[in-house]
Amino acid sequence: MNLGMDMGKNMESWVEVDPNSDFSIYNLPYGIFKTKSSEFRPGVRIGNFIIDLSQLAELGYFDSLPTTDLSVFYESVLNPFIAQGRDHWTATRKRLIELFRKENEDLKKNKDHQKAILVKVEDAEMGMPVEVPDYTDFYSSIEHATNVGIMFRGKENALMPNWKHLPVGYHGRASSIVVSGTPIHRPKGQTKADDADIPSFGPSKLFDFELEMAFITGVNTDLGESIPVEKAEDYIFGMVLFNDWSARDIQKWEYVPLGPFLGKNFGSSVSPWIVTMDALAPFRVEGPKQDPEPLDYLKEKGNSNVDIRLQASIITSKGAEKVISNTNFKYMYWSMRQQLAHHTVNGCNIRVGDIYASGTISGPTEDSYGSLLELTWRGSKPISMPDGTERKFLQDGDTLVMKGYCQKDDIRVGFGEVSGKVLPAK
Amino acid sequence: MNLGMDMGKNMESWVEVDPNSDFSIYNLPYGIFKTKSSEFRPGVRIGNFIIDLSQLAELGYFDSLPTTDLSVFYESVLNPFIAQGRDHWTATRKRLIELFRKENEDLKKNKDHQKAILVKVEDAEMGMPVEVPDYTDFYSSIEHATNVGIMFRGKENALMPNWKHLPVGYHGRASSIVVSGTPIHRPKGQTKADDADIPSFGPSKLFDFELEMAFITGVNTDLGESIPVEKAEDYIFGMVLFNDWSARDIQKWEYVPLGPFLGKNFGSSVSPWIVTMDALAPFRVEGPKQDPEPLDYLKEKGNSNVDIRLQASIITSKGAEKVISNTNFKYMYWSMRQQLAHHTVNGCNIRVGDIYASGTISGPTEDSYGSLLELTWRGSKPISMPDGTERKFLQDGDTLVMKGYCQKDDIRVGFGEVSGKVLPAK
Repeated sequence: MNLGMDMGKNMESWVEVDPNSDFSIYNLPYGIFKTKSSEFRPGVRIGNFIIDLSQLAELGYFDSLPTTDLSVFYESVLNPFIAQGRDHWTATRKRLIELFRKENEDLKKNKDHQKAILVKVEDAEMGMPVEVPDYTDFYSSIEHATNVGIMFRGKENALMPNWKHLPVGYHGRASSIVVSGTPIHRPKGQTKADDADIPSFGPSKLFDFELEMAFITGVNTDLGESIPVEKAEDYIFGMVLFNDWSARDIQKWEYVPLGPFLGKNFGSSVSPWIVTMDALAPFRVEGPKQDPEPLDYLKEKGNSNVDIRLQASIITSKGAEKVISNTNFKYMYWSMRQQLAHHTVNGCNIRVGDIYASGTISGPTEDSYGSLLELTWRGSKPISMPDGTERKFLQDGDTLVMKGYCQKDDIRVGFGEVSGKVLPAK
Repeated sequence: MNLGMDMGKNMESWVEVDPNSDFSIYNLPYGIFKTKSSEFRPGVRIGNFIIDLSQLAELGYFDSLPTTDLSVFYESVLNPFIAQGRDHWTATRKRLIELFRKENEDLKKNKDHQKAILVKVEDAEMGMPVEVPDYTDFYSSIEHATNVGIMFRGKENALMPNWKHLPVGYHGRASSIVVSGTPIHRPKGQTKADDADIPSFGPSKLFDFELEMAFITGVNTDLGESIPVEKAEDYIFGMVLFNDWSARDIQKWEYVPLGPFLGKNFGSSVSPWIVTMDALAPFRVEGPKQDPEPLDYLKEKGNSNVDIRLQASIITSKGAEKVISNTNFKYMYWSMRQQLAHHTVNGCNIRVGDIYASGTISGPTEDSYGSLLELTWRGSKPISMPDGTERKFLQDGDTLVMKGYCQKDDIRVGFGEVSGKVLPAK
């Protein structure tokens, strides 16, 4: 069921929403927030307000929902709400649109209820939206994989032989995924200089970000069960922005033959609002042509990608800000459907709240690359900052901000941002 | 605090325990069990009985414990009990030894209480002992890494340059870890024959096991915190047997450059009883000499290894059984302490219930290798089974059984077994 644009064009809310806000009534993303007087609980964002779902339930506005268990709106993570299943996601979304449309008077005219239900974003602190049972990171941008391949293996062997046949991915660390705003200490670890005989220990010198998107699953499957590619989106609740912080020097020394480990697992950051697949429906686009044709279990039809405009910026400790990348999720070679079908084709089970990240999203042009490794081409082309300094990689005190939104005609559905400040090594 | 042998030599229980049992009063491992009339709950194994900890609590036998919250003994996983911390593990162990020693009359003379507290193993079904927040698999046997290296890269480049400088590891899939006895379907996936131009899809033809041990952590740390090598064992609750089922053909095609993925994540099996570090204390031994000397953060003193005798057997669908490997955990090049210090040196946080597996444990001789890949040297030396058939890799219907125990003089502390039957691809 598509509850995006078909709910009516020119849909407006009685809550004031700036036309440039990511959080129009077409969006209604889910998050976890708390205030000075309340513990972490589920909320939905509209304009500069958070709708407190526990208060909507408390005041009877969810009595018409088919759910038998309103306690999910009082939990400190979204997993129990999500676990109720797609019918409940859709019913809740429909009810929220109904309540907050300009035409509906129920809440609009009840100032006392509004006061209980609407929280100003500046009065709230956001938490991790879900507890993450497992986290997988893919490597599905052909531009990114090609760039990295050229740097490390030369133009002729840029893409590995398997790359165009399957969405390459690896398991990441769930424990160190944090919500936007959480600072990240520069990791320490083993590195080995090319001209050194032995490795040395110290703070990473090549601290990087990776601009990614991630999807969050909303269904538990059984071990041995596979998800067919054409049904994969039934298992996806929504998406977030994802920054896969990377220590390139640690990664380089450790990753052969079993893959990235300490170069990645010191932290990954997610945006606090999960934008549902229903809200993203109006912005679906075709993916790039896949040549060679993938094997049957990866073949799909229709609009497999989403047109999400993405941007990364560095803000220095003194506030000098520079946009360093503009890219788009639509460039992804392997789709989310294909990633999930591949991940489960061997019977691997998934759980509610799992995070599946896309891998770095790079576009075709030099200003659309999704990591400093690519943007500065391993440090050989430093970025000039407005304060006169240069960046090859991130410096202590830098804040990396990623933003993303979809826009079609007057309708905007966005993700807000994911940001994180680099703190010195402990 | 070492509550092993120092509790007294010739310690015996009033519960009858066979001298060859893995579950002497020196052991007292923790697990999760249920019966026809009860839900999953914590238990401790002694001989052929399970001590129902909820019933001990119910009847007041734990009233002397310092814990303020006896509800941990009624949970369906051990995480809440473990999360109480080392003082509580030790106090509970001490109390159990006290209650079940021959000299103690409290329970020994109370037949009604015994009936409520002691469950016969044949009346119980075992569950996953812990909920697993994150799972990491190391690669710390030098014999295994060398064998695999020789097969794939030749004798000169067998070990990668990083191998002797750090305990190589990668993140695995927590969702598909199952308890002993759970059958595993042969996974399907992409493979590419060396002489083929393109990959094909189907059931794995090279289905293997990996004989491993794993440790389970008992403390939550904060992101950014590192665990010093000399304190690492304070963070470890205990150990289990671990079978890291592997599809060699899927793994071979997928694993460059980001490591093993679908070749591993269709299932891993653990033994149901967690043997505590206290119980293993009498069996500590020195590890192999490390040359070159590791960096400071990996330097350790004392008995870093444990002398655990390990065995793997295949039982065919018709019951023909053959021991195919005898090895020992003491061969491990990198210790558990070093693995945990390395894993957290970059600030990666750990959680209660995390599983950290050793990697395949191979010994120095051909009959001590921990996988069929090595035992049959990629299938070139098939194993003859007692029924006249041969095994290069596992066949549908085969059951793989791993056992492990420590023995010193008359004292035996063991893990029981982890077994799993290979079912045909779905």
